[in-house]
Amino acid sequence: MKPRFNLWLESDDGVVLSAWRVRLLEAIDESGSIRAAADQLGVPYRRAWQKVHEMEGRSGIRLLETEVGGEGGGGARLTKEARDLVRRFRRFEAGLEEVILDRYDKAFGAANE
Amino acid sequence: MKPRFNLWLESDDGVVLSAWRVRLLEAIDESGSIRAAADQLGVPYRRAWQKVHEMEGRSGIRLLETEVGGEGGGGARLTKEARDLVRRFRRFEAGLEEVILDRYDKAFGAANE
Repeated sequence: MKPRFNLWLESDDGVVLSAWRVRLLEAIDESGSIRAAADQLGVPYRRAWQKVHEMEGRSGIRLLETEVGGEGGGGARLTKEARDLVRRFRRFEAGLEEVILDRYDKAFGAANE
Repeated sequence: MKPRFNLWLESDDGVVLSAWRVRLLEAIDESGSIRAAADQLGVPYRRAWQKVHEMEGRSGIRLLETEVGGEGGGGARLTKEARDLVRRFRRFEAGLEEVILDRYDKAFGAANE
């Protein structure tokens, strides 16, 4: 057996941020487009787009500055507030996996011998 | 926003123990029957039964000593090994919620002011 965990932030409307959602935002930031980020994460464009809008709705924070048209058909980049959220979430979860593995070893160590 | 988490143990076959599954085992232990435990957790009897058998299959550990027949149509009680697993899981997760709330306050504190 091995320990697993999932960590997320909720508003009254539902999930706002999770590891997956943060990866999506980071992929948009790196690639400059929702479509490229969706490809990178292996989800349909529509799903990625919906998730971003859902996060915006649930957090009340604008996450994307979209650039319509232009060469390549426009792009998307994170707002300052979105980058701040991503950074805070990464800080929130940093090292938590080690904490949980340590707890697992202490609680189940003798059971695994 | 508020932080949420989920914690579970997996074997190669899938989830073995989770907070919900441990509650199910505890409810069986307290009530002495799968049916009463299922009622307590608000799930169909069949689903509770399946989960227990799934846990047994995935962990390779016998969890229930079933008593067939007798007054009340038989019952179920946890094996010593099942009680040990429940106890270890409770130790594994004890205080983790506070750890995560503290991490949330540190990472998102200024964002909430």
